Amino acid sequence: MANRLSKLQRLMAQRHLDAILVSSIPNITYLTKFSHFSKDEREAFLFVTLNKQYILTDGRYAEVVKNNIKNFELIEISAKRTFEKALKDLANKNKVKRVGFDHHNITVSEHKKLSSCFNDLNHFSMDNLRAMKNEKEVSAIEKACKLGDKTFKYILKKIKLGVTEKELAFEIEFFIKKAGGDISFPPIVAFGKNSSIPHHRPTENLKLRTQNIVLLDFGAKLNNYCSDMTRTVFFGSANAEYKKIYRTVLAAQKRAIEFLSSTFVTHLGGGRMDSSEVKLRGIKASEIDKIAREHIISQGYKTIPHSLGHGVGLEVHEAPRLSPKSKDILKPGMVFTIEPGIYLPGFGGVRIEDVVFLENHKPRLLTKSPRGLIIL
Amino acid sequence: MANRLSKLQRLMAQRHLDAILVSSIPNITYLTKFSHFSKDEREAFLFVTLNKQYILTDGRYAEVVKNNIKNFELIEISAKRTFEKALKDLANKNKVKRVGFDHHNITVSEHKKLSSCFNDLNHFSMDNLRAMKNEKEVSAIEKACKLGDKTFKYILKKIKLGVTEKELAFEIEFFIKKAGGDISFPPIVAFGKNSSIPHHRPTENLKLRTQNIVLLDFGAKLNNYCSDMTRTVFFGSANAEYKKIYRTVLAAQKRAIEFLSSTFVTHLGGGRMDSSEVKLRGIKASEIDKIAREHIISQGYKTIPHSLGHGVGLEVHEAPRLSPKSKDILKPGMVFTIEPGIYLPGFGGVRIEDVVFLENHKPRLLTKSPRGLIIL
Repeated sequence: MANRLSKLQRLMAQRHLDAILVSSIPNITYLTKFSHFSKDEREAFLFVTLNKQYILTDGRYAEVVKNNIKNFELIEISAKRTFEKALKDLANKNKVKRVGFDHHNITVSEHKKLSSCFNDLNHFSMDNLRAMKNEKEVSAIEKACKLGDKTFKYILKKIKLGVTEKELAFEIEFFIKKAGGDISFPPIVAFGKNSSIPHHRPTENLKLRTQNIVLLDFGAKLNNYCSDMTRTVFFGSANAEYKKIYRTVLAAQKRAIEFLSSTFVTHLGGGRMDSSEVKLRGIKASEIDKIAREHIISQGYKTIPHSLGHGVGLEVHEAPRLSPKSKDILKPGMVFTIEPGIYLPGFGGVRIEDVVFLENHKPRLLTKSPRGLIIL
Repeated sequence: MANRLSKLQRLMAQRHLDAILVSSIPNITYLTKFSHFSKDEREAFLFVTLNKQYILTDGRYAEVVKNNIKNFELIEISAKRTFEKALKDLANKNKVKRVGFDHHNITVSEHKKLSSCFNDLNHFSMDNLRAMKNEKEVSAIEKACKLGDKTFKYILKKIKLGVTEKELAFEIEFFIKKAGGDISFPPIVAFGKNSSIPHHRPTENLKLRTQNIVLLDFGAKLNNYCSDMTRTVFFGSANAEYKKIYRTVLAAQKRAIEFLSSTFVTHLGGGRMDSSEVKLRGIKASEIDKIAREHIISQGYKTIPHSLGHGVGLEVHEAPRLSPKSKDILKPGMVFTIEPGIYLPGFGGVRIEDVVFLENHKPRLLTKSPRGLIIL
């Protein structure tokens, strides 16, 4: 934690910020390890200066915060000591002028309040800090991915004639929770042509018949860190069209991962790029996206209607973004998904998604479930 | 739906707005009945003019939106047709100048984008519209409350020596989901002195012993509508201090509910106020809060460290707010909780929470679980 704080404070100093207001729950968890606040309502803020840190919360949390977050000074917000009053006091006490806040997280209404406390407000993001994972974080994500793999193995046995999407989604959720985890997001289970909807919500009225696609997209959360994976299997005997789609999606994913591997040895332009160079320069996220996307188009299919992948950590979707317009650079230390898909409305879809850790010398898959064609 | 839209458009006209941008998921669900979008990422917006309505979403949702939301025109957002481009087109096409948005929901970064599309942006909230429930909504909340009551009856049988908070929370969730519902929020289960933390997160290391408080705060969600209830029971033989706290909290709740009843007959000032007057004027939310709060203080306890209650509907916390500083007015048609509590750090806490529907002639409890002292 201390290490994360000092990295953050170094970043703040580079940006000439006297303090930042940390508002999002994952950012608060990143700095304090405390994850009890509700995602739906604003229940706490951190205020971090270059040499001191505070947590602002109300009476509902005061006791538990005092017991759990030792290196942050507790500022209790109440009807008398409002958020604005507390912030003004902190600014005066710490001689704070230039303040950072996350413009993707702070609402217009909150910004109005902040403007009454500080004259010099600037956008400041912790995305890049959080995108670079340390060993402990990678190990936590790996454990979540392992639980995801176990869940997939378990759920394969539950795919039976007459089962509904909702029943399978329920089984996924309860398997993960029984194992002491939580779900990263509500599981997606899609049968047949429903699988052509990338974010299909499981229904209870459709029973599984033979000759059907079964798309499963789910994630486990363990110790606050997420996993995310998608497998598409076939129930019955798959026809040639399905097999072609499957092969194409898998090839697109493999090409993208191989590109990551090869870039560590050979530079795109043809010259060699050794690992220290990769560390310095990284690989453009948009280039990996392009590799997979163009393979799918080259086989006569429409482009992927979503990005190729996204970072995974305290959030199931975080930096970096792997999309055509992304400006993110993939660097050793990052963990992200690669998840190409082909979707044919009225027919169905295939998506294959794995979590990749970009290690020093090569990419390593943290999800290990088999990726070959599965026909049940 | 048509009715909700026309009410909204009437409100917009009163505010001289040509259009509004609807951004929050509950607001989108309120107007479209569609609830599949993720709460964690911005996947859709509605754009509503005085005589036309649009839904803006991307390729992941295009198919399902087309099939499910018939009276909204679909505008598909893509890398080529960005959100801003689409909004500018809509503004031109519909000759839109003055636009409303929710400043509690739109981020600073989104506002920047909106500012590039519209010159005249104004805060507009749907909170008051949603706070007034129609018959169907009350019936949906009532069904969710009924499932909550069933869950309480079920969980009482599971409160046994050696069980953990997390196991009980799991049982609550499992029961609700088996019944086809979802949870309104992660259930709170707190044993012993943990119950003095109003938003305690269930742990797995504390096993239930005798002479212990068991506080249960949970809600069910059915057809998008929420319930919310809290009961505090005692495992073993309760001592006099616990009984006094329990009686005080229950009396505070009863006083608040009785105040709602009596106000329909007798005006606060002493004069009579008949139901049509209540309809017109309503009752100050802060006054109800005061009734319960002062009773607790009068018995020698500290004030409630949270508000007395909150509206319940598509969200488990919505308008109106029942707190000392609330400016909300309670009117017939509203549904809200009344949930006083006493919390003694190191000893434990008691909270009793019910959902009240303010009908035309009197308040009606939608949660019906017994409120008397339960010793297991």
